[in-house]
Amino acid sequence: MANIVCFGEIMGRLCPPGYKKVLQTTSFDVTFAGGEANVAVSLANYGLDATYVTKVPNNDLGKLVKRILKSYDVNVNQILTGGDRLGMYYVEKGASQRPSKVIYDRKYSAISMADPSEFNWDHILEGADWFHTTGITPALSDTCIEITRDALQACRKKGITVSCDLNYRKNLWDCDKAKAVMSDLMQYVDVCIGNEEDAEKVLGISASETDVTAGALNKAGYTEVAQAITEQYGCKTVAITLRESYSASVNGWSALLYTGGKSYFSKKYDIQLVDRVGGGDSFVGGLLYALLERTEPQDQVDFAVAASCLKHTIEGDFNQVTIQEVETLMNGDGSGRVQR
Amino acid sequence: MANIVCFGEIMGRLCPPGYKKVLQTTSFDVTFAGGEANVAVSLANYGLDATYVTKVPNNDLGKLVKRILKSYDVNVNQILTGGDRLGMYYVEKGASQRPSKVIYDRKYSAISMADPSEFNWDHILEGADWFHTTGITPALSDTCIEITRDALQACRKKGITVSCDLNYRKNLWDCDKAKAVMSDLMQYVDVCIGNEEDAEKVLGISASETDVTAGALNKAGYTEVAQAITEQYGCKTVAITLRESYSASVNGWSALLYTGGKSYFSKKYDIQLVDRVGGGDSFVGGLLYALLERTEPQDQVDFAVAASCLKHTIEGDFNQVTIQEVETLMNGDGSGRVQR
Amino acid sequence: MANIVCFGEIMGRLCPPGYKKVLQTTSFDVTFAGGEANVAVSLANYGLDATYVTKVPNNDLGKLVKRILKSYDVNVNQILTGGDRLGMYYVEKGASQRPSKVIYDRKYSAISMADPSEFNWDHILEGADWFHTTGITPALSDTCIEITRDALQACRKKGITVSCDLNYRKNLWDCDKAKAVMSDLMQYVDVCIGNEEDAEKVLGISASETDVTAGALNKAGYTEVAQAITEQYGCKTVAITLRESYSASVNGWSALLYTGGKSYFSKKYDIQLVDRVGGGDSFVGGLLYALLERTEPQDQVDFAVAASCLKHTIEGDFNQVTIQEVETLMNGDGSGRVQR
Amino acid sequence: MANIVCFGEIMGRLCPPGYKKVLQTTSFDVTFAGGEANVAVSLANYGLDATYVTKVPNNDLGKLVKRILKSYDVNVNQILTGGDRLGMYYVEKGASQRPSKVIYDRKYSAISMADPSEFNWDHILEGADWFHTTGITPALSDTCIEITRDALQACRKKGITVSCDLNYRKNLWDCDKAKAVMSDLMQYVDVCIGNEEDAEKVLGISASETDVTAGALNKAGYTEVAQAITEQYGCKTVAITLRESYSASVNGWSALLYTGGKSYFSKKYDIQLVDRVGGGDSFVGGLLYALLERTEPQDQVDFAVAASCLKHTIEGDFNQVTIQEVETLMNGDGSGRVQR
Amino acid sequence: MANIVCFGEIMGRLCPPGYKKVLQTTSFDVTFAGGEANVAVSLANYGLDATYVTKVPNNDLGKLVKRILKSYDVNVNQILTGGDRLGMYYVEKGASQRPSKVIYDRKYSAISMADPSEFNWDHILEGADWFHTTGITPALSDTCIEITRDALQACRKKGITVSCDLNYRKNLWDCDKAKAVMSDLMQYVDVCIGNEEDAEKVLGISASETDVTAGALNKAGYTEVAQAITEQYGCKTVAITLRESYSASVNGWSALLYTGGKSYFSKKYDIQLVDRVGGGDSFVGGLLYALLERTEPQDQVDFAVAASCLKHTIEGDFNQVTIQEVETLMNGDGSGRVQR
Amino acid sequence: MANIVCFGEIMGRLCPPGYKKVLQTTSFDVTFAGGEANVAVSLANYGLDATYVTKVPNNDLGKLVKRILKSYDVNVNQILTGGDRLGMYYVEKGASQRPSKVIYDRKYSAISMADPSEFNWDHILEGADWFHTTGITPALSDTCIEITRDALQACRKKGITVSCDLNYRKNLWDCDKAKAVMSDLMQYVDVCIGNEEDAEKVLGISASETDVTAGALNKAGYTEVAQAITEQYGCKTVAITLRESYSASVNGWSALLYTGGKSYFSKKYDIQLVDRVGGGDSFVGGLLYALLERTEPQDQVDFAVAASCLKHTIEGDFNQVTIQEVETLMNGDGSGRVQR
Repeated sequence: MANIVCFGEIMGRLCPPGYKKVLQTTSFDVTFAGGEANVAVSLANYGLDATYVTKVPNNDLGKLVKRILKSYDVNVNQILTGGDRLGMYYVEKGASQRPSKVIYDRKYSAISMADPSEFNWDHILEGADWFHTTGITPALSDTCIEITRDALQACRKKGITVSCDLNYRKNLWDCDKAKAVMSDLMQYVDVCIGNEEDAEKVLGISASETDVTAGALNKAGYTEVAQAITEQYGCKTVAITLRESYSASVNGWSALLYTGGKSYFSKKYDIQLVDRVGGGDSFVGGLLYALLERTEPQDQVDFAVAASCLKHTIEGDFNQVTIQEVETLMNGDGSGRVQR
Repeated sequence: MANIVCFGEIMGRLCPPGYKKVLQTTSFDVTFAGGEANVAVSLANYGLDATYVTKVPNNDLGKLVKRILKSYDVNVNQILTGGDRLGMYYVEKGASQRPSKVIYDRKYSAISMADPSEFNWDHILEGADWFHTTGITPALSDTCIEITRDALQACRKKGITVSCDLNYRKNLWDCDKAKAVMSDLMQYVDVCIGNEEDAEKVLGISASETDVTAGALNKAGYTEVAQAITEQYGCKTVAITLRESYSASVNGWSALLYTGGKSYFSKKYDIQLVDRVGGGDSFVGGLLYALLERTEPQDQVDFAVAASCLKHTIEGDFNQVTIQEVETLMNGDGSGRVQR
Repeated sequence: MANIVCFGEIMGRLCPPGYKKVLQTTSFDVTFAGGEANVAVSLANYGLDATYVTKVPNNDLGKLVKRILKSYDVNVNQILTGGDRLGMYYVEKGASQRPSKVIYDRKYSAISMADPSEFNWDHILEGADWFHTTGITPALSDTCIEITRDALQACRKKGITVSCDLNYRKNLWDCDKAKAVMSDLMQYVDVCIGNEEDAEKVLGISASETDVTAGALNKAGYTEVAQAITEQYGCKTVAITLRESYSASVNGWSALLYTGGKSYFSKKYDIQLVDRVGGGDSFVGGLLYALLERTEPQDQVDFAVAASCLKHTIEGDFNQVTIQEVETLMNGDGSGRVQR
Repeated sequence: MANIVCFGEIMGRLCPPGYKKVLQTTSFDVTFAGGEANVAVSLANYGLDATYVTKVPNNDLGKLVKRILKSYDVNVNQILTGGDRLGMYYVEKGASQRPSKVIYDRKYSAISMADPSEFNWDHILEGADWFHTTGITPALSDTCIEITRDALQACRKKGITVSCDLNYRKNLWDCDKAKAVMSDLMQYVDVCIGNEEDAEKVLGISASETDVTAGALNKAGYTEVAQAITEQYGCKTVAITLRESYSASVNGWSALLYTGGKSYFSKKYDIQLVDRVGGGDSFVGGLLYALLERTEPQDQVDFAVAASCLKHTIEGDFNQVTIQEVETLMNGDGSGRVQR
Repeated sequence: MANIVCFGEIMGRLCPPGYKKVLQTTSFDVTFAGGEANVAVSLANYGLDATYVTKVPNNDLGKLVKRILKSYDVNVNQILTGGDRLGMYYVEKGASQRPSKVIYDRKYSAISMADPSEFNWDHILEGADWFHTTGITPALSDTCIEITRDALQACRKKGITVSCDLNYRKNLWDCDKAKAVMSDLMQYVDVCIGNEEDAEKVLGISASETDVTAGALNKAGYTEVAQAITEQYGCKTVAITLRESYSASVNGWSALLYTGGKSYFSKKYDIQLVDRVGGGDSFVGGLLYALLERTEPQDQVDFAVAASCLKHTIEGDFNQVTIQEVETLMNGDGSGRVQR
Repeated sequence: MANIVCFGEIMGRLCPPGYKKVLQTTSFDVTFAGGEANVAVSLANYGLDATYVTKVPNNDLGKLVKRILKSYDVNVNQILTGGDRLGMYYVEKGASQRPSKVIYDRKYSAISMADPSEFNWDHILEGADWFHTTGITPALSDTCIEITRDALQACRKKGITVSCDLNYRKNLWDCDKAKAVMSDLMQYVDVCIGNEEDAEKVLGISASETDVTAGALNKAGYTEVAQAITEQYGCKTVAITLRESYSASVNGWSALLYTGGKSYFSKKYDIQLVDRVGGGDSFVGGLLYALLERTEPQDQVDFAVAASCLKHTIEGDFNQVTIQEVETLMNGDGSGRVQR
C-alpha cells in the first residue's frame, strides 16, 4: 500500500445543531477537521497508509484529536505535542440564500507557532511515497512557511511526489503574500489542485468571463488555466474543482483533471447538501487515491468527483464512503434507492 | 367497522440522528416497525379495527413494542410472548446521491423461530373481515412459511379476504426460493400489492424497458404486469406502486390500481423526503382502508397514493395523517401553506 | 435613531424537534414569538430603538420572555405584568406536501384579558416616531380592540406614523368581524401591509383570478389591490407580500410596495425553507427599517424582501441578519458560498 | 379483575432538561400527568381495569394525552372531548437546598370549565368496583365541585367504594374554601389518603409538634390524626404519607395505614430522588391495588410505600414498576445491585 | 440603586453533557462566564445597576456574549470590541472522588492583549458607587495588571469603594508573581474576599493546621487570617469562604465576614452539587449586594452564603435566585419541598 | 511494554438517556463494552500493548466496534470478521432502591457461534506476555468453552501468564455448568479475580456469614476464600472485590489481594455512582497493570481499587483515567476539588 504523509493543521470544529446560528445556540457539536487531515482520513479510509504530521497541545483536546484520527486509521506517531492551544473554528450551516459561515479561532495554535527545528523531515518522510499539503498551512504563519518549505525540499531530495491544494483563505493572508509564497513553493509541487478562485488569487491565473458568485461555469476556460499552471510552475498534473453554487442548499459539482497535456472533465452532479465543508478535501482524497491506485485519467477524475459528491451528503469534514459506494455512483446509480 | 388481522414481524428500528452514518453515531433514535405492523397502524389510524399477530420476547423490549402498538389503537391481544429476541434493524438516512441504508439484525427473532403450532388461526381470525401479510414474513424462515400458509388456508376456509404485499427482500432469501414459495401462496391472495421489482423477482413478471435505478417510468407496461398477475395467480385486484427515485432526497410517487380488468393510475407527486422507509406500507394501509370504505377505484388509488405521499414527510414508519388531511391533498392542495 | 413602539402579544412557541409531529414528540424546543414582537426584534436588530408593549404573567415564563427580548435589544420597560397566563402555540414543521401546522393555546392570555385602563398611551408613546401593530391583536378580544383603538388615536394626536400588518387569522375571528373592526381602525393607518388573502378577507378587496392554494401569482392584479386600499382607507403606503407556496419545503417570495401612486415589485426568491413561521413579520421589520432609513422605494422593497428571504432560512420567528448580509443578497449574491 | 374509575384532570407536564431552571431553558421534555391519572396508570400497571374520566380539547394535544394513556392500558373511552385547552404545568427539578418548583398553567382547562351535565355518571360507573378522585379536582372550579359531588352520590347509590386523596393545593384554592367543600364531600369517602399538611389545611385536624419544613416526624401524633378523620368523617380507612424532606435530593418516605381501628406503620426508606413529583400518587396507586388484591393491612401499607419508594427513582409522574420489583424491595432488598 | 462596575474577562464555557469527559464527548453545552462577570450578573439579578467592563472580539461569539449579558440586565455599553479571540474554557464535571477539571484556552484573549490606553476609567467609572475585580485579571497579562492598577487608582481618586476577590489561579501565574502584584494592588482594596488557599498563596498569610485537600475546617484560625489581612493591607472588610470538599459531589459551604474588628460566621450548608463552578463568585455577588443593601454583618454573610449555597444547585456560572428564595433558606427552610 | 492479549465478546451497549427506563425511552446512547474488552482498554490506557481477540460481524456495527477500540489504542488486528450479529445489551440506570437492570440480546452473536478452528492461538499469542479472559466467555456457548480451553492450553505451552475474572452470569448458564467448566479451566489460571458471589457460585467456596444483598462486609472470611482458591486450583494470586451495595446510588468499594500467602486489603471508598457497569473490569485493568508494572502487593491492590473507584464516576464501561489521577486518589486526595 502506498504510504502518504499529510502535513497541516487539525482543528476542533464547533457547529450549532441543525441550522441554528452561533448567535442562537446553546450547544456545539464537535468534530475535528483540517484541509490536510481530511485528506489523510480519506486516504486511510480507502486503505492506504496515511500519516498525519501536525502539532497539538498537551491537553485533553490534543488527546481527543489523536483518538479520533486513530479511530480512522490515520497514523498519529508523527504528531508533535506542545504549544498553547488547539485551533478551533465554528461552522454555521447555511441554507438556500443564506451562506454557511465559518468563524476562525485558529490564531496562536500549536502548529502555527511551532518551530521549524521541531520537524525532522528526513525522519518523518522515511518510507513515504507521497506528500500532501495545502495553501492553508503556509498561510498560518511565517514559521509554517518555513516548515512547509523544509518538507517540500526534503521530498524533492527523496524523490517523493508532492501534491498541494491551493486553498486560498482570505482571512489568513492577502493575495499578494499568498502569491509571493505559493509561487515559490509551487516549484516543488507535482500535483496541483485548486478551484478557479485559487488559481486567480494565488497564482494570478484566471479563466475569462466567470463570476464565482453567480454559479455559472465557463468550462472552456478551465483547460487554459490548468495548462497555464503546468507551464508556469512545472507541475505535471492539475485538478480543478468546478463548484456551481446555486444556493447554500444545492450545488453543482464536477472537476477537470489535466494530465499528460490533456483535459478530462468529470460528470457533473447536482447535490442537495448535507454538509458542504470538507467537500473539496474529499475530492483531493479521492483523487490522490485514484492517482495512486487507478490508471485511467477519466476514471481517476470520475472517482474523485463521485467520492466527493457523496461526502457532501455526510456530516462532518471526514469522508466515510467505501470504494464500492463510490463506484456504484460512478457507474450511474445516483438514484438513492434504499439499500437493504 | 371492518376488522382486519395483520400478521408479520415487528422490529426495533434504530436510527442515528439526522443524516449521521452508523459509523459516526453515539446514539440511536428508536421506533418500532415492520411491513405488516405499519399497515395495521395505518388501518387503526383511519378508524378500522386492526389486530396485529406476531411473537415478541418476554422482556422490556417486547413490552415496549406492545405499549407503542396500543398507543396507536392496534389490538395486541393476539401477540404471543416468548422466544429469544426482538428483531432489530438500523436505518441510516441517505441524502441526494447517497442512498439510505438498512442493516438487518433480525435473524433469530422470536417470530422467525416461532412454531406453527403456537398459532391457532381459527381462534385468531374469529370475526375478521380481512387478512393482510407480506412477502417478508415467509422470507424469515421455513416455519414462517408454514405459519403463513396455515393462516391463508384458514382465511380461505372462512371466506376472509386476503391481501399480500410482495415486498421482495434480497437479504432474506434469493429469487428462486421467493418464486417457489410465493407462487404457491399467491393462490390464496385476493389483493396483490407490489412494485415492478417485486413482480419480476418474486413472480417472474416484468414490464419491458424499465431500469429501476434510473428513475424512469414505463407507465404503459404496468397494466400488462398487473393483468398478468391476475391471470396467472387468480387474484382480483392488483396494485403497483411506481417510485421514481430521482435521488435519496426527492422521489416521484404514484401507483396503479388494476381491478375489474381496468387500470386506474393515480396522480403523481414529487416528494421531498423526510423519511422514506415505510412509504410503501403506508400505501397499502391507505389502499386497504379505501378498498373497504370507499367505492370508486380511481378514488381508492388516489387516496392510497396521497396518504402515502404524506407519510414520506413523517418521521418513522408509522403513518399518522387524518383522512381529512389526505383528502385535502387528493383535492389538489399540496401547497404546504401553514395551517393555523 | 428612530424610536418605534410595537404593540401586541408575545407567546411561547413550542416546536417538536425536526419534522416530528406533536402526536409523536417527547420534547418541545421553546422560543418566543408574536407578530409584532417579531417586528420589534427585527428593528432592534437593524439598530433602531424598539420598544415592545404587551402584558405577561408574573411568573418565570413572563420573566423569560423579557430576558429574551432584552437579549435582542428590545426595550421591555413598557411591558405590563399580571394576568393569568402567557399565550402559547405549537408549531409542527411541515415538509413537501405536508403543511406546517399551528395549534393555538393563546386564549385567556394576559394581554387578551388586559384592561384598556392599564395602558397609558400618552406616556408609552412619549418620544416615539412610529407605532406598529397588526390585525392579530384586535382579533384577540374586545378589550384588545379597544386598547388598539386607544393607541391609534393617541398616535394620531401625537402625529406618530402608524403601520399595520393586516394578518388575518381565521382561528381568532371570522371575516365579518375582522372587516367591521379593521375597516374602522384603518383610518389611523399610514402604512398598510398584507397579503392577497388579508386584503380579501379583512378589507374585502381582491385581486382577480388567483388561487392561494395553487401558488400561482397574478402580478398584474396586485397594483389594483394596493391602489384600492389607499383609496378606500386613505393610507399612503401599501405593501403586499407575494408568497408562491409550491410546497411546504419550497416557496417563491417577493413583494410589491405601492407608494406615491406607483408600484415597485421586488425581485423574487425561490427559497428552500428552514423555518417559514415569522417570515411575513421579517418582511415588515425590513420594510419599516427601510422606510425609515433608506430613500428609494425600489431599494426599500428590495431590502425588505431580501431580509425576509434570509429569515426563512433561520430557526425561530426572530430575524437575525445583518444589514450587510441583506445587502449582499440584494446585490445579487444568493449563491450561498461558504463565508470564511 | 377489579374495575376502578378515576376522575380528575390530566395535564401536559413540561420540564427543562436536567436541573435547568425555566429561566434558562431552550427546551422542555413533555410528559402527561395528573393526580388521579397517575393513580389510574398505576392501577393498570398492576393489572387492574382502570378507566380515566376527564375532558380534553379536540386538538393534537388532546389526542396525544389519549395515546399515552392507552399505551399504559388505561381505558380512555369515557374521556370527553371539547373545551378550550389542555391544562399544562412546568416542573423545575430542584436539588439539595433548592426546592423543585411547579408553575401552573391549568386555568381555563377543558375539565375545569366542563359542565356537570356532560357527565352521565350512571353510565360511566357501570360495572365499576371502586371510584377514586382527589381534592385537586374540586379545587379547579365550582363546576368541578358539582361534578365531583354528582359522581360521589352516584357511587353511594351504586355501592361503589370511594377513595379520595386530600391533596391540598394552595395555589388553587384557600384553606377556608377547601375545608368547606371537602368536609361536605368527605361523607361519601370510604378511604381517605392525605399527609399531615392536608389533614390540617383541608380537614382542620393536626398532629401536634411537627414542622413540615424541618423534615422531622412525629410518628406518635399520626394515629390520632387518622383516628380523628375516621371519627369525624366516617370513612373506614385512612392512609397518611410521612415525607421527611431532608433536602430536594434526599427524602425519608413512609406511611401509616389506619384501618379497623388500628395503625400500621410501614418501613421507612431514605430515597435519593430522581423525580419526586407524582410520588404521593404512586403511593395511592399501590395502596388501592393492595387494598383490592392483598389481605393484610401491614402488607398493604408496605406494598404501597415500597411501590412509591421506587417511583421516586423513575422519571415522570407515572409509576412503572412490576409487582415483583415492589415485592423484592418489601422483602428487604434495597441494595440496588445490578440485575442481569 | 447602587451602581457597580465590574472588570475582568468573560469566556465561553464549554461543557460535555452530563458527567462525560472531554475525551468522550461529541458535543459541548456552551454558556459564558468569568469571575467578575458572574458577580455582575448576580448584582443585576438582585436589582442593582451592574456594568461590565471587558473586551471581546468583533465576531459572533463577541456578539453572543453581549446578548447573554444583556438578557441578565448587565449594562454592556462599556465593553470594548476588538482583538483576536474570546477566551474559552472547558469544564468536565466531576463526581464523587473524581474532581471537576477545567482546561483553559484563554491565552491571547482580547482582554488579555488589550492596551491600557483603550480604557478611559474616568469616563467608565462615572456615576459608579462600587468597583469589583479579582486576582484573575492581573494574572492574565502584564497589560492587565496595568489596566487594573489604572482602574483602582481612578477609584481611589473618585472615592469609589473597591472589592477584590483574590482568586489565585496557579495555571495563570506563580505564587511569587501573584504576591508581588497583588500586595501592591491591595492598597486600593476596601473589601477583600478570598479563601484559605488564596490568603496563603497570594498574600502569604495562612491559618495554622489545615489541609485543603482533606476537607477539614479550622474555624479558629480564620479570624486571625482575616485580621492579618486588614492589618497588613488596610482593607476594612474581609470575607473568607470555607469550603469543605468531602467529594466532588458533596461540599460543606460556609463563610466568615470580618468587619469592624469582629468575625461573623455563617451557618454551614452541606450541598449536593449540581454545578460547583462559579460558586465562589455567587458568594461575592450575594455579599456585595448585602453590604450595599442590608445592614447587619451577620445578616450580610448569611445572605451571601445562602445565595451561593443555592447557586451550587444551578447549572452554569450565573446565579439566578430571587432575594426571596435566599431569605427562605436563610430563615431555615432548606427542606427542598416542592413549591407549587 | 508488556504485551497482553484479551479474549472475549464485545457488545453494543444501549442505554436510555439519564434515568429513563427502557419502557419509557425514545433513544439509546450507544457505546461498546465487554468484560475482557473493558480490561483491554484499561491496559492500553495505562500504556501497555493490548490486543483484543473476538469475532464481529461484517457490517457497519462490526466496523464501528473496531473504530472505537482503535481510538483507545487497542490492537484490533486479531479480531475475526463474520457471523450473523453483534451481541447487544441494554442498561437501564438505577437509582437509590431501584437497581440498574441489564437486558441481554447477545445470543447468536458472532463470537458465541465462532468455530474453534478459526482461532490460531499459536499465531495470536506470538509475543504475548499475559493472557486475560473471564468466566463470561465460556458461558456463551460450548464452542466458546472449547476456544477458551485452546487458548489457555496454548498459554501454558508458551509460558504466558493467565488471568481470569470468574464473573458468574446467571442468565448465561447455571451454577452446575459453571462449576463443571470453570473448575477445569482454573488449572491454567495464574491470577484469579472474583467477588464473593463468584467464588461461591463458580468455585463452590464461600465466606461465612455474609448476605450479598445486605451490603455488609465480612472482611475476616475473605482471606479464607482466597486461600482456598489458591489451594484448590493452584493459582498464585487471587483478588477479591468487595462491593457494599448500600443502594443503586452509593456503593462501598474495596478489594483484597492475596499473594505469596498473604492478604492485602485496600482502602475502602464510598462512591456516589455515575455508571457502575464495568466497575469490576476496571479493577482488573488496574490490577493487571499494577501486577506488571508495580512491585508491592499493597500498592498493587491500592492502585486497582483507586482506579476502579474513579471508573464508577465515568460514563460507559471503559475506564479513562490517567496513572497520575489514580495516584492522586491513592495518596489520599479524594476531595474532588476542581482541578484548574
